[in-house]
Amino acid sequence: MTDESCSTNPAWMVSYPRVIPERRPAGHVPRAPRWMASFDEPVSLMTSDYLAVQTTDVGSSAARRFADLVRRTHDAGRADAPEAWEIVSFTDAAGAFNLVHIGYWRDPNKHATWVLQAPASSWFAELDAGAIDFGCWHEVIQVPVDRVETIVSKAGWSFGLARCPGVTMRLMTTNGYFGAARDRFPLSAIDPLEAPAPHRRRTAPIRSAGRRLRAECGHNTAIIRSGQHWESAAPDQFEDYEQNLRPKLMAGMEHLLAEPEKEGVASLRIMTNHDPESLHPRRQTSVLAHFNSLEPLETWAESHATHAAIYEHAIRKQREYGEERSVVTWHEVFIVPRNSGFEYVNCHDRTGIMPFATTLLAIEP
Amino acid sequence: MTDESCSTNPAWMVSYPRVIPERRPAGHVPRAPRWMASFDEPVSLMTSDYLAVQTTDVGSSAARRFADLVRRTHDAGRADAPEAWEIVSFTDAAGAFNLVHIGYWRDPNKHATWVLQAPASSWFAELDAGAIDFGCWHEVIQVPVDRVETIVSKAGWSFGLARCPGVTMRLMTTNGYFGAARDRFPLSAIDPLEAPAPHRRRTAPIRSAGRRLRAECGHNTAIIRSGQHWESAAPDQFEDYEQNLRPKLMAGMEHLLAEPEKEGVASLRIMTNHDPESLHPRRQTSVLAHFNSLEPLETWAESHATHAAIYEHAIRKQREYGEERSVVTWHEVFIVPRNSGFEYVNCHDRTGIMPFATTLLAIEP
Repeated sequence: MTDESCSTNPAWMVSYPRVIPERRPAGHVPRAPRWMASFDEPVSLMTSDYLAVQTTDVGSSAARRFADLVRRTHDAGRADAPEAWEIVSFTDAAGAFNLVHIGYWRDPNKHATWVLQAPASSWFAELDAGAIDFGCWHEVIQVPVDRVETIVSKAGWSFGLARCPGVTMRLMTTNGYFGAARDRFPLSAIDPLEAPAPHRRRTAPIRSAGRRLRAECGHNTAIIRSGQHWESAAPDQFEDYEQNLRPKLMAGMEHLLAEPEKEGVASLRIMTNHDPESLHPRRQTSVLAHFNSLEPLETWAESHATHAAIYEHAIRKQREYGEERSVVTWHEVFIVPRNSGFEYVNCHDRTGIMPFATTLLAIEP
Repeated sequence: MTDESCSTNPAWMVSYPRVIPERRPAGHVPRAPRWMASFDEPVSLMTSDYLAVQTTDVGSSAARRFADLVRRTHDAGRADAPEAWEIVSFTDAAGAFNLVHIGYWRDPNKHATWVLQAPASSWFAELDAGAIDFGCWHEVIQVPVDRVETIVSKAGWSFGLARCPGVTMRLMTTNGYFGAARDRFPLSAIDPLEAPAPHRRRTAPIRSAGRRLRAECGHNTAIIRSGQHWESAAPDQFEDYEQNLRPKLMAGMEHLLAEPEKEGVASLRIMTNHDPESLHPRRQTSVLAHFNSLEPLETWAESHATHAAIYEHAIRKQREYGEERSVVTWHEVFIVPRNSGFEYVNCHDRTGIMPFATTLLAIEP
């Protein structure tokens, strides 16, 4: 929201005069170049929308029906269609297969229209929770743009929200030190981004089968999507990713999954991208995790051996290959204020954030 | 979010380069001076919080208990207390008496902490809906500051959100023409602020007695609090207000209450301020109304005889008395995006937005 008349930068970025000091050390020079998303035009609310079926496998009738609805949603050339979208899948801790449509919008009005009118989302809205033999869920993340930060490891690449038109990746120096992610949130200049609600697993049984539930997370929940793209990697780097970096990444994720209460994790999914047409899996993954706030995410990144192993390996390879580094990593983080919650229809009781929801609600007919 | 280094204005205001033309006519000069809120420091999310008991009268045990909890909330000097607050009441369409605490915060973290920890709000959170002989409700409005607009008719006065510290009323010229309220929303420069969801009265019976319900309104619902302050008015103006302006205002409100479907109104309350200590009513009122979007509010203001009568009388008196005008009027409008809804505990089924809720939910134990 810079004044047009005196901006020296063609990109549009929210910025506030700092009240809270940045964490960047004086004179910091990053060890590796990194890029972040900036906007070509002013924007206000960013939306990231996860709509999914919970079933047995990609060939199930529920998955095929869902993929067909997604296809119809996009083939129609709808004005309210997401500006960027993907199909991903994951098998969750309860062993269920989840096929997910991820959509991104810079315009919240188009998103709201899409939710009401698009084939896949209106089908979801009308499902009878008691009459289906699969699960279905919808997690909408919508935040002011000052609550978003992004990073990508290689020039010319963009992922997630940054694939929307009107988004330009820009070389930055706000990276390569502890606290850099926090510094990249424009809001961090004036807000400590703390969570007032404790991170607490629900003790009462969750009756989710046959029902349509809404689960809320607390104010300032931090939702990270952290991605890995190695399908364009040169053979030696491809092999190094699969044999060395990936196992380190998975060890880190296993730790977070094993200690969700201690680490402030409400949900964590290891997702694989699919070709949207053939539904074949791609060599492109991302981890979607919900942390109670930014602080436990920072703590894990700053202090846990599993993150150090991932980070050091990635930096070593970056220095080894320089601009020839062809494994690309990225992330995006959204910090959600008071929110309308995520919706779960006939899902098992460990789906998404339900086990750690601050409030659970059942939708009335 | 102007760049500090090149701002010529000491006040902080969000502004976007316009994509959507303003409605101000070329060369417009307002017939009467008006002031709007600006911020001394950067802010992001604004919160307006209505917490209330629904009972028989101000002397009921529920009202007295509530007033006591409000007192304890404010007497303790809590850091998370609202930065501005009021006590108001109204009798609703079902004949119930509602005693309401209105709080305003510039810091959403303090609000979130207050909701969890303050005496009145934590008491509300723990109420057993099936075991109380009164109703209780909590409506939280939290929006990015680009979705707020305010106006006041007299220099040196501020009301509602604008009573927070760090808010300065500033003389403006964005007033006195149709569309001025829209132009005052910073977001209107880049967003048409339309509602994708239709305005529709619920047809299924609402089972609200003995239950804790959440009611959601649609994306871009416009919530106006429009106020009248005549307790400091000179005798002739005081009399003119009570005998002439007030009846015109009430006729306008009666029309909106009689035609909520046609006029896009989901809820409308005519509220009277009370002295927070003695609970005596004051000569200070405000109307809180929820419109399906900004458009029906504009349509009523631009085209209905009842609004023309209010507006013309107010302008005539303004011109008659000039700076001596001692009846003060004001309003604030919040346009809410996708939201977490309002909560109703053991309330009657016509309370608040329930009859027009886009979604109704029951909170799980």
